[in-house]
Amino acid sequence: MTTHSRRDLANAIRFLAIDAVQAANSGHPGMPMGMADIAEVLWNDYLTHNPNNPKWFNRDRFILSNGHGSMLQYALLHLSGYDLSIEDLKRFRQLESKTPGHPENFMTPGVETTTGPLGQGLANAVGMALGEKLLAQRFNRPELSIVDHRTWVFMGDGCLMEGISHEAASLAGTWGLGKLVAFWDDNKISIDGNTDGWFTDDTPARFEAYGWRVIRNVNGHDAVEIKTAIDTALKHDDKPTLICCRTTIGFGSPAKAGKESSHGAPLGKDEIAATRAALEWPYGDFEIPESIYDGWRSRSTGLVREDQWNRLFDAYAARYPDEAAELTRRSHGELPDDFLAQANAYIAKLQADGPTIASRKASQMAIETFAPLLPELIGGSADLAHSNLTLWKGSKSVATDDPNANYIYYGVREFAMTAISNGLQLHGGFIPYDATFLVFSDYARNAVRMSALMGAHAIHVYTHDSIGLGEDGPTHQPVEHLASLRYIPDNDVWRPCDAVESAVSWRAAIERKDGPSCLIFSRQNLMHQPRNDEQVKQIALGGYVLRDSEGTPDAILIATGSEVGLATQAADALSAEGLKVRVVSMPSSDVFDRQPFEYRESVLPNAVRKRVAIEAGVTGFWRKYVGLDGDVIGIDGFGASAPAEALFPHFGFTVERVVSAVKNLA
Amino acid sequence: MTTHSRRDLANAIRFLAIDAVQAANSGHPGMPMGMADIAEVLWNDYLTHNPNNPKWFNRDRFILSNGHGSMLQYALLHLSGYDLSIEDLKRFRQLESKTPGHPENFMTPGVETTTGPLGQGLANAVGMALGEKLLAQRFNRPELSIVDHRTWVFMGDGCLMEGISHEAASLAGTWGLGKLVAFWDDNKISIDGNTDGWFTDDTPARFEAYGWRVIRNVNGHDAVEIKTAIDTALKHDDKPTLICCRTTIGFGSPAKAGKESSHGAPLGKDEIAATRAALEWPYGDFEIPESIYDGWRSRSTGLVREDQWNRLFDAYAARYPDEAAELTRRSHGELPDDFLAQANAYIAKLQADGPTIASRKASQMAIETFAPLLPELIGGSADLAHSNLTLWKGSKSVATDDPNANYIYYGVREFAMTAISNGLQLHGGFIPYDATFLVFSDYARNAVRMSALMGAHAIHVYTHDSIGLGEDGPTHQPVEHLASLRYIPDNDVWRPCDAVESAVSWRAAIERKDGPSCLIFSRQNLMHQPRNDEQVKQIALGGYVLRDSEGTPDAILIATGSEVGLATQAADALSAEGLKVRVVSMPSSDVFDRQPFEYRESVLPNAVRKRVAIEAGVTGFWRKYVGLDGDVIGIDGFGASAPAEALFPHFGFTVERVVSAVKNLA
Repeated sequence: MTTHSRRDLANAIRFLAIDAVQAANSGHPGMPMGMADIAEVLWNDYLTHNPNNPKWFNRDRFILSNGHGSMLQYALLHLSGYDLSIEDLKRFRQLESKTPGHPENFMTPGVETTTGPLGQGLANAVGMALGEKLLAQRFNRPELSIVDHRTWVFMGDGCLMEGISHEAASLAGTWGLGKLVAFWDDNKISIDGNTDGWFTDDTPARFEAYGWRVIRNVNGHDAVEIKTAIDTALKHDDKPTLICCRTTIGFGSPAKAGKESSHGAPLGKDEIAATRAALEWPYGDFEIPESIYDGWRSRSTGLVREDQWNRLFDAYAARYPDEAAELTRRSHGELPDDFLAQANAYIAKLQADGPTIASRKASQMAIETFAPLLPELIGGSADLAHSNLTLWKGSKSVATDDPNANYIYYGVREFAMTAISNGLQLHGGFIPYDATFLVFSDYARNAVRMSALMGAHAIHVYTHDSIGLGEDGPTHQPVEHLASLRYIPDNDVWRPCDAVESAVSWRAAIERKDGPSCLIFSRQNLMHQPRNDEQVKQIALGGYVLRDSEGTPDAILIATGSEVGLATQAADALSAEGLKVRVVSMPSSDVFDRQPFEYRESVLPNAVRKRVAIEAGVTGFWRKYVGLDGDVIGIDGFGASAPAEALFPHFGFTVERVVSAVKNLA
Repeated sequence: MTTHSRRDLANAIRFLAIDAVQAANSGHPGMPMGMADIAEVLWNDYLTHNPNNPKWFNRDRFILSNGHGSMLQYALLHLSGYDLSIEDLKRFRQLESKTPGHPENFMTPGVETTTGPLGQGLANAVGMALGEKLLAQRFNRPELSIVDHRTWVFMGDGCLMEGISHEAASLAGTWGLGKLVAFWDDNKISIDGNTDGWFTDDTPARFEAYGWRVIRNVNGHDAVEIKTAIDTALKHDDKPTLICCRTTIGFGSPAKAGKESSHGAPLGKDEIAATRAALEWPYGDFEIPESIYDGWRSRSTGLVREDQWNRLFDAYAARYPDEAAELTRRSHGELPDDFLAQANAYIAKLQADGPTIASRKASQMAIETFAPLLPELIGGSADLAHSNLTLWKGSKSVATDDPNANYIYYGVREFAMTAISNGLQLHGGFIPYDATFLVFSDYARNAVRMSALMGAHAIHVYTHDSIGLGEDGPTHQPVEHLASLRYIPDNDVWRPCDAVESAVSWRAAIERKDGPSCLIFSRQNLMHQPRNDEQVKQIALGGYVLRDSEGTPDAILIATGSEVGLATQAADALSAEGLKVRVVSMPSSDVFDRQPFEYRESVLPNAVRKRVAIEAGVTGFWRKYVGLDGDVIGIDGFGASAPAEALFPHFGFTVERVVSAVKNLA
């Protein structure tokens, strides 16, 4: 058996990346070529994982925040023995392949999160490292550290320019996430060229200012220097570590190394040949000799490691059976057996009690009721705890060593907050929630999208949901946000009309394991609505008949949230004039749209075209329910600063307007 | 005349804030009470402005990035003699008052930008300081520094936690914006309480890492220390300055000073009385004695200063009449006289030439044609210059001293980029454009909203507008973004279908002085469409009949961008089968919706209900045009990584599907 140099092992990454990008005629060879040596050292000498079981719970997490370098990760997964074949690599960037353009955790075994939108991978990693810390302090016992892994991040200049890197790194420093190690690919090149013109930060000093340990000036192409840096990082567990690696983008390419031309396009056949010669790589396209594989594969060591951990866990389970069962349940994402029954009992009681309260208050009551049943529920707010009402009696800050720490004071960092939620969820063991004002979902928007794309079971709580916010004015009053969040694919948006619908929306968000939910709550009080048992059940269908007329209705009013009360009042007024009016409450159009045709037709019969939708947001969204012949009462301009009681009539949310809209329909 | 201490002058701010918040029963007294002493020193001893003319071009810009402390700014404007009466202050946070909950530049004379969404004020200020620098290097002449002012920013912990503060401060450091001075209100309190639990950055070290001059440890309640700090800042012009001011939130309140309880709620009558006693303020609610006004008013000095500048400008105009006229034109936001004629000639030529090119390429050609006519056009991209195609032959980096510097290498900083565009526009003298991939408009979203809320003439260019982006995959493929941007009130979104519509959209965005435009372009080639002169004119109406049938159409196809070509091909196929089909191109539904009813009815006759909309984005948006009886061909899930040619048929964008959709309509 030939033994190969570390450089040869790294070159296997380089040429898989080069060849795959060339075959796809699309992709990013420069980063894999630049970070191959670092990746080789990390994966072969440090990463604790088991290629046979990418879901082993105590594995190290590896995050490629600079996700455009996806071929680096695919090459690593392939070489170290994951279920990713050379044929998969040859189908890089082709339809339905396991090797999409950017790493997608739902497509590829061994990919922990979906990256590409820069900076979010780092924030996901902070969430994962926080998750590890919290599970360790909850479950570990002396000599039985069953939760004990590291989180490793690769990131480039682009990640570090993005604002979210500031938010995420600041929190990681504050929390002292000592098992988080980030490698900065300091290659001085971004897409527009040499970064001297637009990226002059002293990044090491910046990270020290966040409370990180910074290891400067590591030659990212020297395995010994890389090892020394990692060894230094592993000596202490009190702070996250940044390892600053000087690298050459496109390393090995005679004409393109160190240049942006290697970043995002195939090298081209001639340059590939020249690179093969320069790096003394005699093998053909996609050809990796068995001897190189021998230097890489970690299937056997992975089996050993997971097996060792399994025995540790068995010992733990013998001694702490309840904790072991609890961790197993949480890590499998299973709800406690009695959750649904207890939630339903609470909802039934609420319907009977009939409180008229703000839905944000109803949300807090739901948290207060459900959280004691769900130790996996972890959440916080972006510095609006007492406005979003996200604190409950059992809240304990994650900045402490409390074994039951479950509350995150995120500070004013909406974007990192949401990406950290995603990271906590992807780590496993948690159902995360986060919160801010609905209007500031804008700041977090792409992370909400990433929740949905990844099918992450995260709960995004947005309060102060309309002009009902009042005096803070148009900068704080959402108008387009409800519709815009609903349009994110696979994202369930709920805007409940009273305390009962609020509790149901929380139950739905907790039960929805395969995707995120946005729960939208009011600042102001919302009238309780009477319902029979069947109607209480139908809330979960997203839309239902809240009040009906005798026989076929003349007109249907469709409303959500604070406007449902208005709709019922208008229905009273219209009924008094002899019209047959149905009121449909539509807390979640996303969920309603998934119902069978027959149910939807029973709620909104196609033949009834006199329809008026009412929502304190943009009108266009509702045309899918009212069509060209109905009407919508909403807001298509910005709000204004004034007390809420002045704003609703000012913007036309009155019984008279609804009545007249119905009457004006042809 | 009694003379008053500086503290008395500052207390006038404090009590106006206290009384106005109490009267409104809503608002934020803590910050104005904490920053009053700093504000008093800055406004009385340093700020160059003219309360008689809030629009004086060479005034210093004062930005309240922590906009919740709006009463600080209103008190300053009132006391120093702006058109903001004590009656206006008494109407704080009331409907249509000049004193809304957060500063709104379109409501209040002397307010430079709209703040409240944290961190953006700082980025706006960076844009303003950049604008000053660029106009100075373009127009100033020896002894004739007609552009010469400072930009001052107040900001709190919240602004500094937000990611955008990182992006904006980093660029300010790179650009060496020496006339930018920011005051950090270091009061250790945010809404959730003492910031020790969530904000542990070494902020001075962080800003030094950005290349700022940092003045540490200033007592924000000591006028002498504040003056010394500002004097130090003014000594050098090579770097932006951060002045770190230790302050006490709610300063003067015996029970609430230093506590979050003073942040966002009225102090309450008893505590107000106690504060009056503690600060020895004997005056009643909203009572400011004339002698205090005497210490504040700067109407006479403002007149003198503007008059001095006017004389300087006259001297300049005498010597450099062309430059003076040009600066005047630019500062008034007027287009050159010949712009429209030249733009139209270019558009007519394009229609005749009929190139089939990517609309991003057509966008670059439009910039190449229009930019030489418009020296005020300044723009850049978030590290995607060669993808967004935002560079043109005359591009010169703003990081240089070139008098014609006009191109901004923003790095990967979408949010700050967009907020800096807003700042450049608000400064005056520029029409800014910025650019990124459409999907990453998410990162900038709230700044786009702020463009619209402020009516800022900014142009946001978004390329790679759909699954047509191809191999980069779903993280990079917009789906919901077109609809979501259109739903931002007062935001004009254009998605042109060919080079001609692309040029028209650029002309429209340049001509639209009272609000932003988002120009959405394709990565891939788009087929040229034939048009007569009338149709070329109608593009500007947002939607028009691109191809018509004889007589009343049986069906109407509505499409935008890359799907217009598909619509015309489907119309051919349907015509071949004897159907009368109209094709409507709808490059801007926002603009179309503003047209008179008669025009809209002529394009989309109410009686023709067989309508199919086609757009590679969410379908729900189009229901406002096709109603319940039409159909929409779009994408309601996420895209996928594959070549664009594979994706369009995969997601159903085929002639066959359109034909069958039309035939299936009842």
